[in-house]
Amino acid sequence: MKERNAVYAGTFDPVTNGHLDIIERASKMYDKLYVTIFKNISKTQTFTLEERAELLRIATAKYKNVIIDNSDILAVEYAKTIGANVLVRGLRATMDFEYEFQMALANQYLDNDVEMVFLMTKANHAYISSSTVKEIAAHRRSVADLVPPCVEEALQKKFQENE
Amino acid sequence: MKERNAVYAGTFDPVTNGHLDIIERASKMYDKLYVTIFKNISKTQTFTLEERAELLRIATAKYKNVIIDNSDILAVEYAKTIGANVLVRGLRATMDFEYEFQMALANQYLDNDVEMVFLMTKANHAYISSSTVKEIAAHRRSVADLVPPCVEEALQKKFQENE
Amino acid sequence: MKERNAVYAGTFDPVTNGHLDIIERASKMYDKLYVTIFKNISKTQTFTLEERAELLRIATAKYKNVIIDNSDILAVEYAKTIGANVLVRGLRATMDFEYEFQMALANQYLDNDVEMVFLMTKANHAYISSSTVKEIAAHRRSVADLVPPCVEEALQKKFQENE
Amino acid sequence: MKERNAVYAGTFDPVTNGHLDIIERASKMYDKLYVTIFKNISKTQTFTLEERAELLRIATAKYKNVIIDNSDILAVEYAKTIGANVLVRGLRATMDFEYEFQMALANQYLDNDVEMVFLMTKANHAYISSSTVKEIAAHRRSVADLVPPCVEEALQKKFQENE
Amino acid sequence: MKERNAVYAGTFDPVTNGHLDIIERASKMYDKLYVTIFKNISKTQTFTLEERAELLRIATAKYKNVIIDNSDILAVEYAKTIGANVLVRGLRATMDFEYEFQMALANQYLDNDVEMVFLMTKANHAYISSSTVKEIAAHRRSVADLVPPCVEEALQKKFQENE
Amino acid sequence: MKERNAVYAGTFDPVTNGHLDIIERASKMYDKLYVTIFKNISKTQTFTLEERAELLRIATAKYKNVIIDNSDILAVEYAKTIGANVLVRGLRATMDFEYEFQMALANQYLDNDVEMVFLMTKANHAYISSSTVKEIAAHRRSVADLVPPCVEEALQKKFQENE
Repeated sequence: MKERNAVYAGTFDPVTNGHLDIIERASKMYDKLYVTIFKNISKTQTFTLEERAELLRIATAKYKNVIIDNSDILAVEYAKTIGANVLVRGLRATMDFEYEFQMALANQYLDNDVEMVFLMTKANHAYISSSTVKEIAAHRRSVADLVPPCVEEALQKKFQENE
Repeated sequence: MKERNAVYAGTFDPVTNGHLDIIERASKMYDKLYVTIFKNISKTQTFTLEERAELLRIATAKYKNVIIDNSDILAVEYAKTIGANVLVRGLRATMDFEYEFQMALANQYLDNDVEMVFLMTKANHAYISSSTVKEIAAHRRSVADLVPPCVEEALQKKFQENE
Repeated sequence: MKERNAVYAGTFDPVTNGHLDIIERASKMYDKLYVTIFKNISKTQTFTLEERAELLRIATAKYKNVIIDNSDILAVEYAKTIGANVLVRGLRATMDFEYEFQMALANQYLDNDVEMVFLMTKANHAYISSSTVKEIAAHRRSVADLVPPCVEEALQKKFQENE
Repeated sequence: MKERNAVYAGTFDPVTNGHLDIIERASKMYDKLYVTIFKNISKTQTFTLEERAELLRIATAKYKNVIIDNSDILAVEYAKTIGANVLVRGLRATMDFEYEFQMALANQYLDNDVEMVFLMTKANHAYISSSTVKEIAAHRRSVADLVPPCVEEALQKKFQENE
Repeated sequence: MKERNAVYAGTFDPVTNGHLDIIERASKMYDKLYVTIFKNISKTQTFTLEERAELLRIATAKYKNVIIDNSDILAVEYAKTIGANVLVRGLRATMDFEYEFQMALANQYLDNDVEMVFLMTKANHAYISSSTVKEIAAHRRSVADLVPPCVEEALQKKFQENE
Repeated sequence: MKERNAVYAGTFDPVTNGHLDIIERASKMYDKLYVTIFKNISKTQTFTLEERAELLRIATAKYKNVIIDNSDILAVEYAKTIGANVLVRGLRATMDFEYEFQMALANQYLDNDVEMVFLMTKANHAYISSSTVKEIAAHRRSVADLVPPCVEEALQKKFQENE
C-alpha cells in the first residue's frame, strides 16, 4: 500500500468551521493532508499570510497528519512537488459547483495524474464563508458558532484596530 | 498506513465509458474499489442483474483491484459491511448535483463514518448516460465511442431480439 | 387592521420536520394558517388522506391558529374560498426553485389577488423529503430526527404490514 | 446563397402560444421551417397525432414557409432527410437548459453537420407548457391567453368528453 | 390581531418597475412597509442617498403605508428597531436564488425572530435591474417602460451632465 | 431568398478555440458573419483593441464570409447598422445561461427585429475562457490546445514583457 496524500488549497482569510469540517473529514481519508494557502493577488486580504497560517495551525493542532503550507505556483504543480495526487475541494450547495467544474476540467488539461475530489459541506455550514464571517464580525456580532475561538478573538482585535 | 477501500454504486444498465472513466480514476485512488450494482426496484431494466455484472467484469478486467458486486441494503450499510469508508460518485455538469447533495446529507444523517467523495466526469463523457446510449442503439446507430466493445455487442443483440 | 390568513398546501405523505418548520414559522406570521392536503392523482400515496390529516392534526396540535383541511380545486381558488390571500411555500436549496417559479407565474395568471410567499427551509432540514423519509424507514432505520413521533410510529406500522 | 431550412421538433400536445412565439421568430430566420411532431412513446398523449397536426396547421396558417410534419426517426437523421441543417429549440429560463445541453452534445456526436440553435422564450411565455395548459383547462378555467383559439376550443371539448 | 410590519431593503440606485412591483404587492400584505436604503460601501453609486430616497418617495406616493428610510446596521437588527419581523425580498428567476438562500441562513443564525419572505418577480420584470436600466440610459435609449417617470427624467439629466 | 447575416460580439481578449468553434459553426449558418469586438469599459484588457482584431483576423482567415469589426454602440443597434438580424452567442454549460437569458430579454425590449441565437459550446471547449487561458499562460504553461498558434505566441511575448 502506497502513501496517499492530498492538498486542500484556499485563501483561508480566515479559516471557518466550514473549512475545519472539510479538514477533519479529509484528514481521516488521507495519510497526509496539506492545507495550503494560495496567494490570491486579485483580492485584498484582511489577515496577512503569516496570520492566516498561524490561525490554521492553532485550529488544526489536533489533526496530527495535517501540514500547513503556502504556495504561489499552479495547484496541480504544487501537488506533484509535495507528492500528493489529490486536490480536495469543499462544495457548498450549488454555490460553487460550476466554478469548480470548470476548474476541474482545466486541471485535467494541465495534469491527468492529479485528481480533484469533492466533499459536500455539512448542511449547517452551508452559509459560512470567510466574507460572511467578516461582515458579521464588522457589525460587532459574535461569530462564535461559525469559527474556532482563535479566529473569533483575532477578528475582534482586527475590527477594534480599524476603529 | 491502513487499507483504504471505496464503493462505486450504480444501476449500470449497461456500463458506459463515463462509468469506466470514474472506475479507472477511483481504482488508482483506493486500495480496493467495489463496483456494486444496487437493485433499483422503481426502474425496469434492459439487462438482467447477471448480464450487467458480466459486462462490468469484462470491461474492468484490467483493473486488478476492482471487485464487481451487488446489494440491496442501504449503500452506507453496505460500505461498512465490506470495510469501505468511502462512496465514490461521478458528477456530470450540474445535471446530478442537487440530487447528489441531498443524498450526501441523507447519508451523513445515516452514518458519519462513511464519506461521499465526488469526481467530476471528463467533459467529453458529460452527455453519456445509460439511457442516452440505449436510445441511440435502439435507433440502430453505433455507440462504439460511448461504451466498451462488449456492451456495443450486447446492445446490438438485445435490440435484434426485440424486433 | 384586517385579518391576514394563509394557506400551506402539500401532499404531506407523511408530514416531516421540514414541513413543521415551515408551519411553525408561517403560523407566527399570519392570523390563521390553513394546512391543506391537495389530492395528487398522479402519485400513489403511502398513507390515506384520513391518515395524513390525522398525523398533521397531532403534529400541529400546539399551534392554535393552524387548521388542517383538504381540497381538490385549484390552490388559488381554494385560497379565495376560505378568505386567504397568501399561499406559503417552502424552498429547499435550489431543488424546487424553478418548479416553484413556474407555478408562481401560472398562479399570477390565474389570480392576481393571491400571492405566493416563499420561506427558505432551515439548512438542517434541506435534505428531508417525504420520499427520503419513507426510503430510510423502509430499510428499517430510525427516522426519529426527521419526523414527529406520531409519524415515526405510523411508518413503523406501515412497513411491518408490508412484510 | 443557398436555401437555409430548419426543423422545430416537439410533442405539441397541444401547441401553445410559447411554441407559436418560437415558430414565428424561427419562420423569419429560415427559408423553410418544418414543425415536426415526434412520436414520444414514453408519454400518453391527450390529443392524437392527427389532432395535434391539425391544430398546428390552423395555428400556423399565416406563416407561408411553415410545414407541419411528423416522424419517428432520430431528429438529426430526419433533418438530413428533408434537407435542413438546423434544429431549432426554445429555452424557458433554466428549466430545460441542462437537458438541452446534454441533447446538443449527443446530437453533435451523432452528426456534426446538423446544428442545434436555441431561442429564448419571451418572458411572458416562460410559464406556459402543454401540461400547465391542460391542468388549468381540466379545472375549467380559461386558457385563452396561453393558446390559440383552436386549441382553447379543442381543450374544452376534450374535457367535456371526459366528464 | 397584532400589527404586522415588513422591511424591503435595497440599494435602489435607482428604483425600477421591478422594485415597484414588489413594493405594491408587499404593501398589500403588511400593515406598514419600510422601504429602506442600505448603504453599500463596496459599490460606487450613480445617485446620492438623498436622490435615491427622493425618487422612491415620488414613485411610492400612492401607497399610504409605505415609509422610505435608510440604515447602515445589520438588516435583522434594523427590523427589530422599527418593530418589523419580516424582511421582504424579490427573486428574479434563479439569478439571485443562491445568494438569497445563503443570506437567509445567515440571518436565521443572527436572529430567529425575523423571517425572510420571498416574492417572485413578475415575468416581464425579470430582466430589469438598476444596472441594466443605467446601461440602456447611458446609450441614450428610452427606459420609459422599465422605470417610473421621475427616474426616467433623473437618468436623462444624470447622463447629460456626464457629457 | 434574402441575405442572412449575423453578429458574434465579444471582448476576445484573446480569441480562444472555444470562440473559433462558434465562429466556424456560425459562418456555415449565415451568409456573412461579423465578429465584432465590443469595448468593455469596466474591464482592463491584456491586449489592445488592435492586437485583438489582428489575432482574430489571422485565426479566422480561412472563413471567407467572416468580417472582423469593432463597435461601442448597443449590440442590437450595431446589428441593424450592418444589416444583420441575428446576434450569435455561445453557451458554456450553465455558466453563462442566466446572464444570457437576462440579456436576451433586455434585447427583446430594445428591438424585436434582432434575434439572439444560441449555440452550445462543444464539451471539450467548455472550460476554455480567455481568463483561464491567460492564467495558465501567466504560469508559463503551454496553452497550445486551447488557442490558435498566433495567440499562443502573442501570450508568450506578453508575459515575457511583464517580467
